[in-house]
Amino acid sequence: MLVVMKPSATEAQVDAVVEKIRSLGLLPHAIPGAQRTAIGITGNKGALDPSLFDAMPGVREAIRVSQPFKLVSREVKAEDTIVDVAGIPLGGPAIVVMAGPCSVESREQVLEAAREVKAAGATLLRGGAYKPRTSPYEFQGLAEEGLKILALAREATGLRVVTEAMDVETLAMVADYADLVQIGARNMQNFSLLKQLGKIGKPVLLKRGPSSTIREWLMAAEYVVAHGNPRVALCERGIRTFENATRNTLDLNAVPVLKSLTHLPVVVDPSHGIGIRAHVPAMARAAVAAGADGLIVEVHPCPEKALSDGQQSLTPGEFAGLMAQVRVIAGAVGRPI
Amino acid sequence: MLVVMKPSATEAQVDAVVEKIRSLGLLPHAIPGAQRTAIGITGNKGALDPSLFDAMPGVREAIRVSQPFKLVSREVKAEDTIVDVAGIPLGGPAIVVMAGPCSVESREQVLEAAREVKAAGATLLRGGAYKPRTSPYEFQGLAEEGLKILALAREATGLRVVTEAMDVETLAMVADYADLVQIGARNMQNFSLLKQLGKIGKPVLLKRGPSSTIREWLMAAEYVVAHGNPRVALCERGIRTFENATRNTLDLNAVPVLKSLTHLPVVVDPSHGIGIRAHVPAMARAAVAAGADGLIVEVHPCPEKALSDGQQSLTPGEFAGLMAQVRVIAGAVGRPI
Amino acid sequence: MLVVMKPSATEAQVDAVVEKIRSLGLLPHAIPGAQRTAIGITGNKGALDPSLFDAMPGVREAIRVSQPFKLVSREVKAEDTIVDVAGIPLGGPAIVVMAGPCSVESREQVLEAAREVKAAGATLLRGGAYKPRTSPYEFQGLAEEGLKILALAREATGLRVVTEAMDVETLAMVADYADLVQIGARNMQNFSLLKQLGKIGKPVLLKRGPSSTIREWLMAAEYVVAHGNPRVALCERGIRTFENATRNTLDLNAVPVLKSLTHLPVVVDPSHGIGIRAHVPAMARAAVAAGADGLIVEVHPCPEKALSDGQQSLTPGEFAGLMAQVRVIAGAVGRPI
Amino acid sequence: MLVVMKPSATEAQVDAVVEKIRSLGLLPHAIPGAQRTAIGITGNKGALDPSLFDAMPGVREAIRVSQPFKLVSREVKAEDTIVDVAGIPLGGPAIVVMAGPCSVESREQVLEAAREVKAAGATLLRGGAYKPRTSPYEFQGLAEEGLKILALAREATGLRVVTEAMDVETLAMVADYADLVQIGARNMQNFSLLKQLGKIGKPVLLKRGPSSTIREWLMAAEYVVAHGNPRVALCERGIRTFENATRNTLDLNAVPVLKSLTHLPVVVDPSHGIGIRAHVPAMARAAVAAGADGLIVEVHPCPEKALSDGQQSLTPGEFAGLMAQVRVIAGAVGRPI
Repeated sequence: MLVVMKPSATEAQVDAVVEKIRSLGLLPHAIPGAQRTAIGITGNKGALDPSLFDAMPGVREAIRVSQPFKLVSREVKAEDTIVDVAGIPLGGPAIVVMAGPCSVESREQVLEAAREVKAAGATLLRGGAYKPRTSPYEFQGLAEEGLKILALAREATGLRVVTEAMDVETLAMVADYADLVQIGARNMQNFSLLKQLGKIGKPVLLKRGPSSTIREWLMAAEYVVAHGNPRVALCERGIRTFENATRNTLDLNAVPVLKSLTHLPVVVDPSHGIGIRAHVPAMARAAVAAGADGLIVEVHPCPEKALSDGQQSLTPGEFAGLMAQVRVIAGAVGRPI
Repeated sequence: MLVVMKPSATEAQVDAVVEKIRSLGLLPHAIPGAQRTAIGITGNKGALDPSLFDAMPGVREAIRVSQPFKLVSREVKAEDTIVDVAGIPLGGPAIVVMAGPCSVESREQVLEAAREVKAAGATLLRGGAYKPRTSPYEFQGLAEEGLKILALAREATGLRVVTEAMDVETLAMVADYADLVQIGARNMQNFSLLKQLGKIGKPVLLKRGPSSTIREWLMAAEYVVAHGNPRVALCERGIRTFENATRNTLDLNAVPVLKSLTHLPVVVDPSHGIGIRAHVPAMARAAVAAGADGLIVEVHPCPEKALSDGQQSLTPGEFAGLMAQVRVIAGAVGRPI
Repeated sequence: MLVVMKPSATEAQVDAVVEKIRSLGLLPHAIPGAQRTAIGITGNKGALDPSLFDAMPGVREAIRVSQPFKLVSREVKAEDTIVDVAGIPLGGPAIVVMAGPCSVESREQVLEAAREVKAAGATLLRGGAYKPRTSPYEFQGLAEEGLKILALAREATGLRVVTEAMDVETLAMVADYADLVQIGARNMQNFSLLKQLGKIGKPVLLKRGPSSTIREWLMAAEYVVAHGNPRVALCERGIRTFENATRNTLDLNAVPVLKSLTHLPVVVDPSHGIGIRAHVPAMARAAVAAGADGLIVEVHPCPEKALSDGQQSLTPGEFAGLMAQVRVIAGAVGRPI
Repeated sequence: MLVVMKPSATEAQVDAVVEKIRSLGLLPHAIPGAQRTAIGITGNKGALDPSLFDAMPGVREAIRVSQPFKLVSREVKAEDTIVDVAGIPLGGPAIVVMAGPCSVESREQVLEAAREVKAAGATLLRGGAYKPRTSPYEFQGLAEEGLKILALAREATGLRVVTEAMDVETLAMVADYADLVQIGARNMQNFSLLKQLGKIGKPVLLKRGPSSTIREWLMAAEYVVAHGNPRVALCERGIRTFENATRNTLDLNAVPVLKSLTHLPVVVDPSHGIGIRAHVPAMARAAVAAGADGLIVEVHPCPEKALSDGQQSLTPGEFAGLMAQVRVIAGAVGRPI
């Protein structure tokens, strides 16, 4: 249920609705909006009766929300959410490009990558300090030392930092260093972590699980928002299918579907999505043409020496070429970079 | 094995190579090319020794082909194949747009659709006279009456006609009426039909099977080419995955992968691919941005009355809007429509 | 709609119902049954009104059929269908085992395989004379010569013959030689072929398409039955999933699901299903435990020399071992072999 | 690399090998075995030279392990591992049946379920106190109160308890109450949790992720073993495919594949696997016929009132029927229950 207030509603009228919701044993969620104030209600078992709220002063209408996801739904908030990433608006007109190495390997590697991707037009630096790896014997990341290197690169270049948190134990530390906290595909339904993300003061980039439906993904985002953090962006990174000519199957269908179902920003990761260096630019162009609000791209000063994901990382020169192509497509869909 | 002749090779030298291949019990296939004459060899069980041909007069080199598909491979023919569809070049610089109803239902419906899609910029008219339907109780198409209606619409508008052949029995008749013979997804590995397609004088649009890998798809194209018809274009139309928010998962990853593996043109069907009317334009834009050579789009004068696929058919007005958007993207990647 | 007659209904009363159905422009289908006579109705666009038939003499009740498949549905016929394969009852209490090589390669190979599988307890001989192959350059089968070899083996051993028909052109010839006509997975939705199968006088073994849902499969069977041939058995042979440790994912879930949805017999092909010789017996045991009515198993006198599918073919000795295990499981579920 | 000692090797000789491994900067892992002592080596980047160890006193041979999983591989340990679950041997000749409700809902519900499943022959009680739920608005479990109820049921019946741990924070508490700690499908690649499981003193039941390959699953088990806990059993519970007639696709192919690749016990969950109450017994029979070492089945005193998974829970009476059937199959494959 969503209670939409009149534009003329007073603060006291809003408070009265909030109190009424609480008195019913339910949870009120204020929904920010330029045009209208609204209060989402969760915690009810069955459908609520709109007449509980319709007649209250200042209320324009009470609407039933048909989707199982509520707070992230377009039904509840029609306007696009713009997530503020340390001053960079994600989800607004401009397309945000995040780039950098898969793993933080060394100070030199990160600084070089940062300078190069900044020069080419990226505004966020990506890089993993904690690495989820299929094998326990593979490189697991530099941990806090890696986070410090990212912070250093931020100071040196002004790029904001997006980096992955893998668990509740290290989340607070990652959130301290990061401007945008990435949640990896395999943690998309780590519900304990999702709940904790509701309590941090940083925005979240929630990657899609490799076999998660769009609705499950939106439910995962709903966990974060329902637990208190409305600053969530979604990142399509490829799903698992029978096709093995590509690493994953980047599902660009998800972009227009998400834009119609949710007000949250949508980012695309063509690097993991297709997993083949030569084809990353084509998928980046397609993502922007399909309506993505941002891109996250793996760039390594020397891909053949990368400790992870070298086969899909671009050289700085290739990334500059990608940016030139993406700028033209962004222009064609009326969006700056 | 591919025997590449020198630019200066004489016809007699080419003939000698062809004879040598036949004398080994193998099949020669002339590969047309602007820059060079080449002869593909198939029929060998194991690898052939290049020295069998290297020393023959006029031969530049004999190359082993590493892929299981040979004649459709970029290894064998580096230049893009341009398929001539009754004067429309498919696979060249210009993006070819095919549009029209899912099924041919009536003369009025098809003529109206044809005029509208022509006005919006399509150059081929699509429409099914033979319809593969999951249920035996659903509308199965108008058969030859439908083909006649398509021919009429061609005369009236100058649009070329692409329509589906479902079996060997009706293939000759379909090929008589069609300018481009479409093979549906569920027939992609109907090998008897593929062999027969090698013998018709019309080009073929081979749709990807919903659970076919890119390599299986190229092997299916290889069947047609190896049996004598080099005029084949591929059509991505969505694969079957676990995701059910969309009808299929349009796999745009296939576009750059195909463009690197094969010289054949690549068409995309966003209508079946995503299966939701509102999202067809986004996927059409993305397909062109990814490098597709053509689009095939369902357009119906009155989608809610369509006998099939109404939920994914555009109105003529929506199609005109799609064309405007696609033109801008095509321009951005340097291609006319 | 299904019109169920009273046990006491006269022939004239049944005829009157059939006439009434025809007079409505619909198609009557007599449903054989030990307990009751019934007439299925197809061809209606919307739901029919039961009162059209309820009051007719001899009618017990008219029932709406909720599934999109009608004639193959348990709703329409509650009792198991027993398909008579040249005297072998498939779908009755006894589990029917079909075995033999993937491809017919030579007279010696087939005769040896036939004698061995008969000795171990099989009652049908399998072997392909027409082979659907992913590559046009692979062995395509011995065609009619292969069918003759199978007939010879039948004469020599008394085994019935199951072999694949690939297209309408060769269907009549295959049906001449075969006791059970197999339709391969990639032809499951070859609707032209399915319609033709409705007109042959032999029973059909319809394999599941590798990405076909159970409902699509039942609709394919419905094509055959609706076009006149009620003697259809279904064969689960593995679906395509992301898992690549096995050739396919044999979907044994389909067995109980099918047994609840349809009255047709269900056969399982563990050889293609898992695709690894060592694991075929385990899947054969599991299939019988899950409720399968039959098995079809690849056996080759010398698997390492097989022209196709050697990696999943059992030696005759391994097959005898499988039969011993399957007999015990069959006994445990109360079924003879 | 695996260093296999001679049966006659002394403790000092074993220690010398361990020291040699450590001196190379690598990790030794003692592999328990009735027939032989062996030491697994992990931590090496490339292949090790067997001659480093071959000549050492007491060493029979040093073997390269070809699989990416090492400690859980059959190459490293040929004998079946028997996991001791508070005195119940899992992975030995006897098939272990675990049963109980999806969620712990109340004392009465759990006690009733426990008595019933014990009477029918189960030896472990299942029930979730922490519930991973797709929606933040669904019942999340009773937490420690639920664990206490399970402990009570253990006291009352003697059944051992298997229950799920969802995160590192609550793992120690769950491990305190549980005899077998279950890790749910969505946490299969929660690497932080896997590492922590290496340090608990209880055995682990690791469910397969719904889109995880068998190899990824074995790598996840390798995480637990490599971090110090060799008491791991694997639980197949269905994978995600395109088929939607069943909740998941229970992949029984995994059973023989796992039994050949690993020495760990394999349990099957037919309830989540097929997700349809009526078909759970068929899949349970098939699982045992395929070679499973155990079953985990959802049983609820009153499935229609269950707070989760009611559609796939058996009544106590249905469970008793399942046990009768499974006993017969177990007997047929020579295993007691």
